[in-house]
Amino acid sequence: MVADLYPSRIGEKASILRRQDDVIHKNSNLMGGPLSKEELARYEENGYLLFQDLFSKEDIDVLQQELKRVLNENKGKQSDDVILEPDSDEVRSVFEIHKNSEFFKRLSKNKKLVSIAQQLLGSQVYITQSRINFKPGFKGKEFYWHSDFETWHVEDGMPNMRAVSCSIILTDNHEFNGPLMLIPGSHKWYVSCPGATPDDNYKQSLKKQELGVPDHESLKWLVDKADGQIDRATGPAGSVLFFECNIMHGSSGNISPFSRSNVFFVFNSIENKLVEPFSGGKPRPEFLANRMNIEPIEPIDESIANTKVLMESK
Amino acid sequence: MVADLYPSRIGEKASILRRQDDVIHKNSNLMGGPLSKEELARYEENGYLLFQDLFSKEDIDVLQQELKRVLNENKGKQSDDVILEPDSDEVRSVFEIHKNSEFFKRLSKNKKLVSIAQQLLGSQVYITQSRINFKPGFKGKEFYWHSDFETWHVEDGMPNMRAVSCSIILTDNHEFNGPLMLIPGSHKWYVSCPGATPDDNYKQSLKKQELGVPDHESLKWLVDKADGQIDRATGPAGSVLFFECNIMHGSSGNISPFSRSNVFFVFNSIENKLVEPFSGGKPRPEFLANRMNIEPIEPIDESIANTKVLMESK
Repeated sequence: MVADLYPSRIGEKASILRRQDDVIHKNSNLMGGPLSKEELARYEENGYLLFQDLFSKEDIDVLQQELKRVLNENKGKQSDDVILEPDSDEVRSVFEIHKNSEFFKRLSKNKKLVSIAQQLLGSQVYITQSRINFKPGFKGKEFYWHSDFETWHVEDGMPNMRAVSCSIILTDNHEFNGPLMLIPGSHKWYVSCPGATPDDNYKQSLKKQELGVPDHESLKWLVDKADGQIDRATGPAGSVLFFECNIMHGSSGNISPFSRSNVFFVFNSIENKLVEPFSGGKPRPEFLANRMNIEPIEPIDESIANTKVLMESK
Repeated sequence: MVADLYPSRIGEKASILRRQDDVIHKNSNLMGGPLSKEELARYEENGYLLFQDLFSKEDIDVLQQELKRVLNENKGKQSDDVILEPDSDEVRSVFEIHKNSEFFKRLSKNKKLVSIAQQLLGSQVYITQSRINFKPGFKGKEFYWHSDFETWHVEDGMPNMRAVSCSIILTDNHEFNGPLMLIPGSHKWYVSCPGATPDDNYKQSLKKQELGVPDHESLKWLVDKADGQIDRATGPAGSVLFFECNIMHGSSGNISPFSRSNVFFVFNSIENKLVEPFSGGKPRPEFLANRMNIEPIEPIDESIANTKVLMESK
């Protein structure tokens, strides 16, 4: 049995534990990766990196077309991996896009993204979860503060902090349309949350998380550690955010007319595959936490615009 | 009977009407007021002005102490003019502070504020409504887009667009704690909303407005007119925002640990006193729309810090 380095949802009180894992998982074979020393240091310190020029204008056009296609294909669809907004029938998230869409499957293997994940995680990587968040204009609701790792550890059995989320911003992210907010440096601490996890908790929690929710005191403590700063991942369409699996993040609602759509790939180290959930409960479904036929990604070195052309010429 | 220049909540469809009133109400006796030509032009164009240096550090300290006192005095109070958050028992707003607190009564007559209102409205002024909004950290909920004038016209019988809100920001307003958002230039148009107004609508609408809510299409149109821009009133504690009664504004929720508190005074022209509500219903209570014993304000020329000292030495 794998030791539980990060117990949570086992008592009635919250507590803050020190992180047990490295942030940058050094591997001499991968140190020649795309990230500079400065970028690595910034990621280690803050827990995230935002790139505004990873993709070309052409690439971004293609990404936006594909986003629209996926949204249209999933409107009104009744399926476990299509999540609706809590108070309306607008599409909130579509999961498993690295399996269900040929285009996003190739995108998830794109060398530009994969080589960054490999360098940060110090090993070969695979996708443990993927999704598109649409966050429609006018009625996109807030995501309250959370560490993804807390849920992935307790509900999915991810043993160590050795995963990174990659968010490609597919619409312009402004200060006023509910951008992702991050507490810099919060990935160095683990907020153990009160409560126990019921079976099938995910059916509720994907709409509105009620367990694994950090308490006010711990959040205040983390923000104080960051000198009162809360950062926002704003940028033009095509910006790419890499953020550490344990960084505390959330977002406000979006009452602006502009949707705030993103595609998420979660890269996990091939040496950090999921085990039994540390809650002791049954694992969440495959679309939330991939366990079957795990193989390391073979990166594809091609532009996104080219991905599209190649697919259409088949 | 006074003609209804701005019909709303009378049909099933929204429509956008042109503003009938001046934005700056010129009065040759008041043109020597505190605002420069440039400031007046900016107000006319955008519909609001933000000042960061109207008050001294000492003044702001006093304001913050008084805010705390009012919050403590009203915790757990059952009263019509104390409004709680929809999902908790946190105080959301306290009304009538220009009557119920000696300190805020004097502040509402402060010459720095009143002389700006007089210059914009081209006449003597009085307070038609006042309140403190606390917007607590972690759970402050959103205020959806609205024009104050739409409600004041329909539910309170304010005949013309000749009022200005003055918001003194009592905590630092960041991008990340749900600052007031404004659509620049939207005060030049009137969004007539669908629906009819039931009696005592205010009991619901102060927690969550459901009538007089502009439709998506009109909001999109207003934001397009503003070249896709939505402005935020961010600034350090002590900043003061003057915004026109018909500007379209709103705010997102506040999941940060920092509360976002403001004191609001609504100055109305003495020539624009309330008449019968244009909805045909009964007027809202006095604490929302002052009708009794209306007298023009005699401005008091003193610093806020001095207001406090004078009061304490009594």
